[in-house]
Amino acid sequence: MPKNRTLFTKRFAGKSGIGELMDDLGQAMASGDKLMLGGGNPGYIPEVATLWRDRLNEMVNSSNEIDSVLGNYDTPQGNENFINSIVSFFNRHFNFGITRENVVITNGSQCAMFNLLNILGGTGEDGIKRKVLFPLVPEYIGYADLHLEDDVFLSLKPIIEDLGFNRYKYRIDRDNLNKIKENLGALCVSRPTNPTGNVLTDDEIDFLHLFSKKRGIPLIIDNAYGAPFPQILFKDITLKWDENIVLSMSLSKIGLPSTRTGIVVANREIILALSRVNAITSLASGSLGQGITYPMLDDDRLINISKNLVKPFYQKRSNLTLELMDKYFQGIDYKVHVSEGALFLWVWFPSLPITSKELYTILKEKNVLIIPGNYFFFGLKEYWDHSDQCIRINYSGEERVVKEGIRIIGKTIKGL
Amino acid sequence: MPKNRTLFTKRFAGKSGIGELMDDLGQAMASGDKLMLGGGNPGYIPEVATLWRDRLNEMVNSSNEIDSVLGNYDTPQGNENFINSIVSFFNRHFNFGITRENVVITNGSQCAMFNLLNILGGTGEDGIKRKVLFPLVPEYIGYADLHLEDDVFLSLKPIIEDLGFNRYKYRIDRDNLNKIKENLGALCVSRPTNPTGNVLTDDEIDFLHLFSKKRGIPLIIDNAYGAPFPQILFKDITLKWDENIVLSMSLSKIGLPSTRTGIVVANREIILALSRVNAITSLASGSLGQGITYPMLDDDRLINISKNLVKPFYQKRSNLTLELMDKYFQGIDYKVHVSEGALFLWVWFPSLPITSKELYTILKEKNVLIIPGNYFFFGLKEYWDHSDQCIRINYSGEERVVKEGIRIIGKTIKGL
Repeated sequence: MPKNRTLFTKRFAGKSGIGELMDDLGQAMASGDKLMLGGGNPGYIPEVATLWRDRLNEMVNSSNEIDSVLGNYDTPQGNENFINSIVSFFNRHFNFGITRENVVITNGSQCAMFNLLNILGGTGEDGIKRKVLFPLVPEYIGYADLHLEDDVFLSLKPIIEDLGFNRYKYRIDRDNLNKIKENLGALCVSRPTNPTGNVLTDDEIDFLHLFSKKRGIPLIIDNAYGAPFPQILFKDITLKWDENIVLSMSLSKIGLPSTRTGIVVANREIILALSRVNAITSLASGSLGQGITYPMLDDDRLINISKNLVKPFYQKRSNLTLELMDKYFQGIDYKVHVSEGALFLWVWFPSLPITSKELYTILKEKNVLIIPGNYFFFGLKEYWDHSDQCIRINYSGEERVVKEGIRIIGKTIKGL
Repeated sequence: MPKNRTLFTKRFAGKSGIGELMDDLGQAMASGDKLMLGGGNPGYIPEVATLWRDRLNEMVNSSNEIDSVLGNYDTPQGNENFINSIVSFFNRHFNFGITRENVVITNGSQCAMFNLLNILGGTGEDGIKRKVLFPLVPEYIGYADLHLEDDVFLSLKPIIEDLGFNRYKYRIDRDNLNKIKENLGALCVSRPTNPTGNVLTDDEIDFLHLFSKKRGIPLIIDNAYGAPFPQILFKDITLKWDENIVLSMSLSKIGLPSTRTGIVVANREIILALSRVNAITSLASGSLGQGITYPMLDDDRLINISKNLVKPFYQKRSNLTLELMDKYFQGIDYKVHVSEGALFLWVWFPSLPITSKELYTILKEKNVLIIPGNYFFFGLKEYWDHSDQCIRINYSGEERVVKEGIRIIGKTIKGL
């Protein structure tokens, strides 16, 4: 490999903080029995797994369904049946008013976000750098390294609303947002938010939507955990779409992460751009997730699975883990972000005498793996001490693992 | 979308000659009954499809195999079982002497090539642009648009060896290659070659290998059609690997294109770089192709399928299509590149009174879809009239379609 790295190598193949964290987690996991609260894998829901098995059985034993799914490249835009099903599903349930030209399928939503952020943000032909604004960090760690250029991501601190009883909620800081002078290419939020479990309110989304419209830029909503599938979302919200919204979705968290199926609903211009990038860089996306689920979109099984199996599973796990925290963190200065969705609980230790990164290392030695919070605060203009006081915990693993992990975290912090 | 496009948009989401060709082909296909000789889809081999169905049945009906394949993200490097199987397979059959650290799995080999070419070629931190050299064009159309930067690809014309009886073969022009003064980042060849069906000889590969070693750059061999799977390769060659070779492979042409499974064997540094890019841009690759095939690598079913089913299928089709050409092209000045592998026959019409692009348009009006040859000559420093005299024909479709298509092509050219 060239010693003088290319831009691409430097940005995506070099050492990165997150990459090192992932390597470190991987090595820790490989070195013996660990309590893993750090990953992003969805939980195992036996009833849902059975549905995938049944559907695959149907495909394998039909006259030629599986042959056709396995043996043909789809177009770069995606599988025709699946796109039709997505269109009619969202028009039927949510009045999106979309056509086939508003949908593209990607090899997972990470890939969709990589393409989107590099299309919408960055230096244009006019030499002006348009930034991607994350109006509320902490935000998904996986965005942090996604851009080809330095210094394209800009983010804002939230307002912290203390809800009492060791709970709090992040709110969009609208005044600060309105002060933004930079040239922007897009706004981006995950909703529900990884890592916090926050769900931006309808009113906040309306505000961001109006803001982005005024600026003439799209609002990207990463809906990987949201409604109507997988519905790891514990409060009622309105799902809206118009030409100014880019809605990114995924089949990962409903239980099909390895099929790498990302779905983007956006205006025609953006869909055409994403399809073209897909053609050049990937030829086509994988077909299996699309093939498994398109009839389940048509007959609403997917929405029912989400509502009746997936959501209750996570809601129960979240509640249980919150109870464990309130038990084992007693006597510690801690606040948990309200759990409104996603796989994670986000815990803030305002009086932590060390950084969350140091806490990560100490916990790792005690065989408990968590994600230190500092990685989720990319794009801020100045240091914020809050960013070193939080940790992310995946609550969807085995109950035994989560319970023992929380117990050790509590004991460790008390002993600091 | 920003009117002033970013570099990424301009390179990958804008209009491109190939993109327009693909759109045009897609629209033509959608507009009624067409004889499709233009695509890159592998043929349908019923016996092979049955093997995939049987294996999927086994996975679905085992206690938890399919649950685990569908429900878990693999690491960015790939699935552990599959990587182990690849390592022991290539060590057992070909004495590669590789370890797990020499293998990475990607979402298809197109994606692997995108990452590889942008890692190895382009402007380095020292400001020097290192080019990717294609030592023999015509070469795979899908490489042409893969780089972030302009003017990174450099290519050389071949020596044309007339074999008589309307057959010819391209040879590496070694003298010209030795004259290359440019800074290089990598050499790249597909073997068997898409679009020509050429297979570089062992001696040519040894020459390129030595050349790249002397230059201190890797030799990328895109083995998507080659040995030992899918073995769409009609002559005996030696499959070699060492630290200086990047071997790219795929499960697409053995019949699993929609699983998007690319396999790269390379030195540790390159594998680490590719894994990191995968982590950032895709999180992980799809698991299904890996899950289906790893036991078939272990018990050599995959190599036997390739040898006993896949290779004979294509060999027979190729021979049949060559016979059809010799029949229907009688009286035309034509030469077909010797068919040594891949899905394509490459026909040169030295006295064609129009360009192959114009021929494409005329044939499209007669419902026959082929790929005009000019797109495969990217990277040349100057115009070569040969590039407007060739067409690519996919011979792996239904016999009826291929026969009727060849007949119409012959008749059309005679009528020019």
